[in-house]
Amino acid sequence: MFNAIVSADTLGTALDSVSALVEECTIHLNEDGLAIRAVDPANVGMVDLSLDATAFESYEADGGRIGVNLSRLEDTVGMADAGQLVHLELDEETRKLHIQIDGLEYTLALIDPDSIRQEPDIPDLDLPANVVVEGRDINRAVKAADMVSDHIALGVDEADSLFYVDAEGDTDDVHLELDESDLIDLTPGPAHSLFSLDYLKDMNKAIPSDGEVTLELGEEFPVKLHFEIAEGEGQVTYMLAPRIQSD
Amino acid sequence: MFNAIVSADTLGTALDSVSALVEECTIHLNEDGLAIRAVDPANVGMVDLSLDATAFESYEADGGRIGVNLSRLEDTVGMADAGQLVHLELDEETRKLHIQIDGLEYTLALIDPDSIRQEPDIPDLDLPANVVVEGRDINRAVKAADMVSDHIALGVDEADSLFYVDAEGDTDDVHLELDESDLIDLTPGPAHSLFSLDYLKDMNKAIPSDGEVTLELGEEFPVKLHFEIAEGEGQVTYMLAPRIQSD
Amino acid sequence: MFNAIVSADTLGTALDSVSALVEECTIHLNEDGLAIRAVDPANVGMVDLSLDATAFESYEADGGRIGVNLSRLEDTVGMADAGQLVHLELDEETRKLHIQIDGLEYTLALIDPDSIRQEPDIPDLDLPANVVVEGRDINRAVKAADMVSDHIALGVDEADSLFYVDAEGDTDDVHLELDESDLIDLTPGPAHSLFSLDYLKDMNKAIPSDGEVTLELGEEFPVKLHFEIAEGEGQVTYMLAPRIQSD
Repeated sequence: MFNAIVSADTLGTALDSVSALVEECTIHLNEDGLAIRAVDPANVGMVDLSLDATAFESYEADGGRIGVNLSRLEDTVGMADAGQLVHLELDEETRKLHIQIDGLEYTLALIDPDSIRQEPDIPDLDLPANVVVEGRDINRAVKAADMVSDHIALGVDEADSLFYVDAEGDTDDVHLELDESDLIDLTPGPAHSLFSLDYLKDMNKAIPSDGEVTLELGEEFPVKLHFEIAEGEGQVTYMLAPRIQSD
Repeated sequence: MFNAIVSADTLGTALDSVSALVEECTIHLNEDGLAIRAVDPANVGMVDLSLDATAFESYEADGGRIGVNLSRLEDTVGMADAGQLVHLELDEETRKLHIQIDGLEYTLALIDPDSIRQEPDIPDLDLPANVVVEGRDINRAVKAADMVSDHIALGVDEADSLFYVDAEGDTDDVHLELDESDLIDLTPGPAHSLFSLDYLKDMNKAIPSDGEVTLELGEEFPVKLHFEIAEGEGQVTYMLAPRIQSD
Repeated sequence: MFNAIVSADTLGTALDSVSALVEECTIHLNEDGLAIRAVDPANVGMVDLSLDATAFESYEADGGRIGVNLSRLEDTVGMADAGQLVHLELDEETRKLHIQIDGLEYTLALIDPDSIRQEPDIPDLDLPANVVVEGRDINRAVKAADMVSDHIALGVDEADSLFYVDAEGDTDDVHLELDESDLIDLTPGPAHSLFSLDYLKDMNKAIPSDGEVTLELGEEFPVKLHFEIAEGEGQVTYMLAPRIQSD
């Protein structure tokens, strides 16, 4: 059983954070809210999303799960005007999701969850450095790095208490330093890893520019990015595996 | 003889309603205003436009006709800023249309009307159902249907006094119901027909979202859509032939 | 030695006027400001730009020159928000330009000036007609001409004290006349020349629509276009060679 009403903005933002990595996913219809975990086909990027029942206007669920095509679901939600409500109701017999937006009813065929790539276990890493930064600074770093390279290094300079971003191109380089006055918070620790810019660009699209992002970093380790959506009633964690250093 | 001054907005809107279906058309320069009738190459969609002399700042004509390439004429009118006036003058000898916009003179070569697809006779059908709806609801229905299918069914539910739109895709369906509280007016009658979405999408582009549209409908019959342009001093009628039901 | 701080808007506008014609250029780092002269590969269009030291927040230079790839430099400057400052510093040893924008450092590899197409001598022509016009009228003329032709004629009608623009297409023609009431200033003289529209379209992109443009014209002679940027602290001159009249 699943029957919920939610603002189109909230649902759309939550789905966008997952569709940055995958086209299909399994949604867990838990009693306390929706939960999605997914990993991209190359096993490089993972997402863990939860959208609490309190983020909904009304929410009833009893623990099932459904498989969805994200772009079809997002397009449907995108039919709503800003601020309009979306009514979701699962028809258990036909395995279809009924989506109602002000008189418009969309019937979405679901996908068998067993046919979707298996949900990842997101490892519990104890990463030594912790950086809290505004979303717009992630955006700036990703855009600048993209001008010169396909890779981006994220690191912490413990001596100078700096978070830095490096991208080295064939001819040009980009370097961004954010010190404690630029950062919201910094727990220094040994950290320097290289990442694929393609993944960070996709993740960046889902990061709210006016929100806080917490990065957990280590040396040649994955990065974890945490941020809130839906005014704190939803949580997104991305994990991105490092590239082997090219130099 | 043809010599007229009209706001670029009014003329542009009028031409857009015709170019939704055809690239070339014959314009009748009647004493009481412009009139255009056209049918698309597949004989599926027809348009009947009249733009009254009162919609013009000044208007003089004596009943001739000219053939025009619509996109060239629209591009020229599009050179004007919002609210600017367009001066149209026919040179009978050279068979060219002189278009003046604030010091800019465009000379448009005309097309021999006899070389343009013949103007249709738009049949006078006595359709049983009549629905008056806001343009934005047509827009919403067309966009939603387009997400799942190439076809759209329009119909009236006489029992519940509803106008409905149905689109059935391979996996997903869309259904929109507008009852008497959503509609401007409804004259119920037996009505259900399937139409090609491509045509309705093109027609929809010309329908003002904040205006009224009257639909005349029957069972397996064409639909007629009527709406006003130019603050009531222009009238557009579209007629769209039904598709044979696929089920 | 070169070390300067300038608003991103000012630097971006200056570079755009040169990149309209060439992809690489030599920038002269003069004591009193930057200077660039360049000619397109076909030797048809030339640009002469100066950006005075007073247009900078701070400016120090001692007369060297650097070769740059314009699109890479423009992309970097485009990373700045409106009103942000760009800090430029030349590293003489590595021959790299360090570009800093609020914590972001971009290292741009320079090009050997000797490998860049030689800078033109812009001839000192004594052209008989002089027209001062608003930038938006150039824009309007270029857009209208582009609808019908690849060429555009610019001329002065001495008898009627008019500046005119003519474009003749295969079927349609465009004619624009600006008389003394439309122009900011006019010094009539014998002037009529045909130009390639492609070049004028590129130059037009760099012309501020709300600024003044001075055109110097003759009969079958190049046109010179002068306008100011950076609130009068930068000057751009374009020279465009005429096409041989086709009729």
